[in-house]
Amino acid sequence: MNEISPIAAPDGSVLRVHAGRPDAPIAVEVTRGGMVESVHRVIAAVVDADGRAVSSWGDIDRLVYGRSAIKPIQALPVLESGAAEAQGLDDAEVTLCCASHSGEPMHVDRVVAWLGRMGLSADDLECGPQMPGHEPSARTLIQAGTAPTRAHNNCSGKHSGMLTTAVHLGEPTKGYTGDDHPVQKRLKAVMAEMSGCDLSGVPTGYDGCGIPVYGVPLKGLATAMARFADPAGLSAGRRAAVERIVAACAKHPLLIGGTDRFNSTVLAETGTRCLLKSGAEGVFAGAAIDRGLGICLKVDDGTGRAAQAAFGAILVHLGVLDADAQRRLANALTPPIRNWAGRLVGVVRPAPDLAF
Amino acid sequence: MNEISPIAAPDGSVLRVHAGRPDAPIAVEVTRGGMVESVHRVIAAVVDADGRAVSSWGDIDRLVYGRSAIKPIQALPVLESGAAEAQGLDDAEVTLCCASHSGEPMHVDRVVAWLGRMGLSADDLECGPQMPGHEPSARTLIQAGTAPTRAHNNCSGKHSGMLTTAVHLGEPTKGYTGDDHPVQKRLKAVMAEMSGCDLSGVPTGYDGCGIPVYGVPLKGLATAMARFADPAGLSAGRRAAVERIVAACAKHPLLIGGTDRFNSTVLAETGTRCLLKSGAEGVFAGAAIDRGLGICLKVDDGTGRAAQAAFGAILVHLGVLDADAQRRLANALTPPIRNWAGRLVGVVRPAPDLAF
Repeated sequence: MNEISPIAAPDGSVLRVHAGRPDAPIAVEVTRGGMVESVHRVIAAVVDADGRAVSSWGDIDRLVYGRSAIKPIQALPVLESGAAEAQGLDDAEVTLCCASHSGEPMHVDRVVAWLGRMGLSADDLECGPQMPGHEPSARTLIQAGTAPTRAHNNCSGKHSGMLTTAVHLGEPTKGYTGDDHPVQKRLKAVMAEMSGCDLSGVPTGYDGCGIPVYGVPLKGLATAMARFADPAGLSAGRRAAVERIVAACAKHPLLIGGTDRFNSTVLAETGTRCLLKSGAEGVFAGAAIDRGLGICLKVDDGTGRAAQAAFGAILVHLGVLDADAQRRLANALTPPIRNWAGRLVGVVRPAPDLAF
Repeated sequence: MNEISPIAAPDGSVLRVHAGRPDAPIAVEVTRGGMVESVHRVIAAVVDADGRAVSSWGDIDRLVYGRSAIKPIQALPVLESGAAEAQGLDDAEVTLCCASHSGEPMHVDRVVAWLGRMGLSADDLECGPQMPGHEPSARTLIQAGTAPTRAHNNCSGKHSGMLTTAVHLGEPTKGYTGDDHPVQKRLKAVMAEMSGCDLSGVPTGYDGCGIPVYGVPLKGLATAMARFADPAGLSAGRRAAVERIVAACAKHPLLIGGTDRFNSTVLAETGTRCLLKSGAEGVFAGAAIDRGLGICLKVDDGTGRAAQAAFGAILVHLGVLDADAQRRLANALTPPIRNWAGRLVGVVRPAPDLAF
């Protein structure tokens, strides 16, 4: 994993630019023709439910905002509080609590119906409107001359889950994204418990959807995810919540992301053997359920294409994706780059000398 | 410019993650609340027209695909060949030869009219269709139920320039993007001459718009740009071409990029004191005309937000942008990050301890 100068490879393969480094050892390469054009560097932790690192790449104590990768953790209070049961949330809605969805009708219609059951509407969501990431869905909105609503926001399921809890517990629905609202205090507490990290005094910020985010050591985020794979140490209520989330997401892989999304494609392949969730700025978290392991990674530069490629590489490394699965998922694991005319011009892939 | 561990700053300012490194010393930080969330690393060269490095950050001999950042160089044959004069290209069309435009009507309509004058149409462009990057323009197309054409491709001006040269020199217009077509051979030759680099045997690939791209040392790309600032050593014909390009782009800053684009915003401020051009995968090239210097940089990970911030920082470093200009350009130089509800949550900025 040392520096490799751009020298011509004797077999005519692509020129390498510097690959991994000691402090961010996973390198994801973006090739174009005969050269590596860009390189992303990634830190990653694979840990067990006691927080023991099984594998680590780089400084896994680095503070990271989990962003949307921690939505499965943020969904726990919806279930633990009894809100999900009281409001009759089905597995699709539980999955939407964990989703960063593409704003397709299957996502938006479900969110609107769910809010409607509680006497609420998209206007009660505090996440701001967002054009669907799914192009045909965006196109449909534009052609109809209608603006996207807050229900189209990729986080609308998570926010509906927060509202569900607030309604159930008799808390104000207005202002539920504020730092001091009980909904956010619960999210901070559940993150501290699941990660095993003291979050008092850590750096904070605001997420794209308006809720507070907390700097958590990467290892802590991975530990929280490991507890989805190995919930033996959790309370009965939390254990039930964790198991429901894993089962629900495996049943509705398209709802956690959307059509042709990496997250959904891989989850459709692994089913209950995995939980996995992308986050903004190159965070990716998941659990290898049958290994009892949690996984979290952060791309230094925040790029999603590298987070996906690195997460896929770790699943391969752990043996979660066998050769057949790798073949089926090739377009997701090592996505081809095509130009505007459709010609194959490069690929995004883990560096071949990855130190696994 | 050493590693900085994530330690709390005594003044309560944002936590730093590792900043620059010896081999990619310019760091661009993306902050969120109390923490640096992501970091981009950049190599850069500032050289004179003889290829002497005035400033360099990292390995400036690294091979880089210039991508769209070298469009001003690729425009030279259009002028040198006499094609521009024969076809009566105005300054707007010369600027479009150098543009990666947003597909706004001001770009597309001009390209269509220009092709029409030569008896050609958008169908003769080999760059593939592309939805306009300018959202309102994309929206207009979608609402009208029409697909984008090849004239909407951000490279349509460059391709129209190539066709103009082919028409003028009596070469086939069909296949003008092929490696062996005289148009592409001229582009390779002019790049070799302007950069002072032997391009035989360098890694090659294909650009997003279908033409071949060549791996050129970063220093060579900067040298080529320096010759726009200091054309004394060029032939009379090339010198005239270079001067026309600088003047044309300064006259039509909105045509080189588009509404609210970094490239256009900065060029509108600097006028003929600068030439600057973005490229895909985090390349940025330009010239500080009154300093006689060329500038080229590459973001390791290929991210445009970092290329812009780093290029702006170099212009500040060189004294091209004074304090007043920096104030006027603040949103371009250090762009705020807002969430979906419009709240300010972070900023993209050069690392404060940048080793300038």
